[in-house]
Amino acid sequence: MSEQRHVNFNPGPSTLPLPALERAQKEFLNYEGSGMSILEHSHRGPVYTAVHEQTIALLTELLSIPPTHQILFMQGGASSQFALLPMNLRTDSHAGDYIVTGTWAKKALAEAKVVGTPHVAWDGAADGTWTRVPKQDELDLSQNAPYVHITSNNTIMGTQFFDFPDTANVPLVADMSSDILWRPLDISKFGIIYAGAQKNMGPSGITVVIIRKDLLEQTRTDLPKIFRYREIAAANSLQNTIPTFPVYLVRNVLMWLKDEGGPAEIERRNRKKAALIYTAVDESGGFYRCPVEARSRSVMNPVFRLATPEMEKDFIAKAADAGMVGLKGHRSVGGIRASIYNAMPVAGVEQLATFMADYQKRA
Amino acid sequence: MSEQRHVNFNPGPSTLPLPALERAQKEFLNYEGSGMSILEHSHRGPVYTAVHEQTIALLTELLSIPPTHQILFMQGGASSQFALLPMNLRTDSHAGDYIVTGTWAKKALAEAKVVGTPHVAWDGAADGTWTRVPKQDELDLSQNAPYVHITSNNTIMGTQFFDFPDTANVPLVADMSSDILWRPLDISKFGIIYAGAQKNMGPSGITVVIIRKDLLEQTRTDLPKIFRYREIAAANSLQNTIPTFPVYLVRNVLMWLKDEGGPAEIERRNRKKAALIYTAVDESGGFYRCPVEARSRSVMNPVFRLATPEMEKDFIAKAADAGMVGLKGHRSVGGIRASIYNAMPVAGVEQLATFMADYQKRA
Repeated sequence: MSEQRHVNFNPGPSTLPLPALERAQKEFLNYEGSGMSILEHSHRGPVYTAVHEQTIALLTELLSIPPTHQILFMQGGASSQFALLPMNLRTDSHAGDYIVTGTWAKKALAEAKVVGTPHVAWDGAADGTWTRVPKQDELDLSQNAPYVHITSNNTIMGTQFFDFPDTANVPLVADMSSDILWRPLDISKFGIIYAGAQKNMGPSGITVVIIRKDLLEQTRTDLPKIFRYREIAAANSLQNTIPTFPVYLVRNVLMWLKDEGGPAEIERRNRKKAALIYTAVDESGGFYRCPVEARSRSVMNPVFRLATPEMEKDFIAKAADAGMVGLKGHRSVGGIRASIYNAMPVAGVEQLATFMADYQKRA
Repeated sequence: MSEQRHVNFNPGPSTLPLPALERAQKEFLNYEGSGMSILEHSHRGPVYTAVHEQTIALLTELLSIPPTHQILFMQGGASSQFALLPMNLRTDSHAGDYIVTGTWAKKALAEAKVVGTPHVAWDGAADGTWTRVPKQDELDLSQNAPYVHITSNNTIMGTQFFDFPDTANVPLVADMSSDILWRPLDISKFGIIYAGAQKNMGPSGITVVIIRKDLLEQTRTDLPKIFRYREIAAANSLQNTIPTFPVYLVRNVLMWLKDEGGPAEIERRNRKKAALIYTAVDESGGFYRCPVEARSRSVMNPVFRLATPEMEKDFIAKAADAGMVGLKGHRSVGGIRASIYNAMPVAGVEQLATFMADYQKRA
């Protein structure tokens, strides 16, 4: 079966490490001899509890999460965090500074506007496009903001933060849905990191939130209990029934990541993969064009264009014929997008780079 | 592997139909020859879309859902619906009538209190216990309530509604997390039905909401967009990335349910299973005792007691030795609870009934 698997450049849900899937398949009906599938275990029983704690331990180890921070597992995806963040942390006068680098950042801002009064610290669409992330001196940060929100990697635009904004004493909050774990990270710089699992950590259906514990004390209590970060933290994410299988699969992916050498090794591979594509683009003599400013080019979602939408359609179709799927750019922007998250092997990207060169020769 | 599976009486997540699991296991690495796992497909691509629509079609068929109602898939479990229901449907003066028949109903009421002003139409704890559901003439219903909320089956207390309250023109809302699909249902009686999947429909991580379409027009717009029923309905539940694998597994469970004969046949089996246990209790000469009033005894979660907590502990341990697990009552009430949702075979309950008789003989 596995031989017939495609090279899958889907932007999310996206390709998963084969060893993580094979492990799940093997024990699908009877988890570790426990007499039932992991899907059928109680979320409060010892078998799932061990998986839960192992997932937390692996994330803590792989991201070097300090004791100042706590990991939460939540539901609803990053889009729910767009709402829950200001619901939990706005003040009566301020619902956060927002650095708007793309579609998802704009959606986060829109939800903050529903529940309070956010401030736009930078918006790349003022240029007419979102082709870069801002520099520090471009930011209009508030003095009294409860937090500054960024989207660390912009999947649609193909841009990424490599240096994070300096927000002084204001907590930095990052939506890292599409680049968490792409490299080692200094967690101490962040007040909150949140990430839907379905791009770089596992399947859809579970959201990881890493929150500085002192911020829990500052969270509001005028929202439903099920949505309060402080309650979720107090219950170790077991306030109600957790999506056990998504957590279990995240665990399998983290086990794979550790086996492969962890974030330092995966960063090396990720940089190599991105370089393969950007080099193919830059050395194509203009046949392929990347609209993104060089210093902001995403390592996770390189985007590029051909001369016409018709050529792009043809490129995508011929790539699919060659077993490489998911290369169509987001419907809002078009073009080509190669989502090359951690689970995409170097060999898959080499195949794409070779295809790009061959396609250009034949064109 | 499957031979070694236990008879699993877990209250949720709970046992799943073996054919539904086996299907998932077989195609886990490569779904229907598509070159990837269903987990790795885009939630907007044709392969997942077909699964999504098939799940909706099966639910529509099995529950005879009329065109007046729409199915939504949401995240966060029933506990999130406790909050989202009043957030969407309260009026400025009223956050719903609540019929409090147990722990979960009480939690639903508590969340309504956070966002508005609910009214308690009946509370079984006024008796000091929750050992029954109310009769129609006991209800103190408001004239101007936006809805009346019930918990159709109370997993912890082992009680269940068999006739639903008459709420006249006020929409009836039911948390059916633990008994949806246990029998054919007249959906037209309900304004909203919601149910976490992990008891009677599939794994944890997906919540089904069945809403009368005219109520969508009455929902509020002063809450975050991601939480608005009307937006989720307009997007066919694809406002953001849906937990694709949980939906897929619900589909597999519904395919199994249809193959087995649908709700009419499953009702026959469910009544047979419940009768096996209640008969064993009632004919034990007081060795086993069911605290629940006869007309309110749950078909899904029969609960019973032995003379002492020590005997109950021994019963649970010896049952586990015999391969029957998950029989411990909820930590808040103790005792024995046999959760016998749709996926529990009659043979599993026969084994338990035999064990109960043998245990009594040996005692």
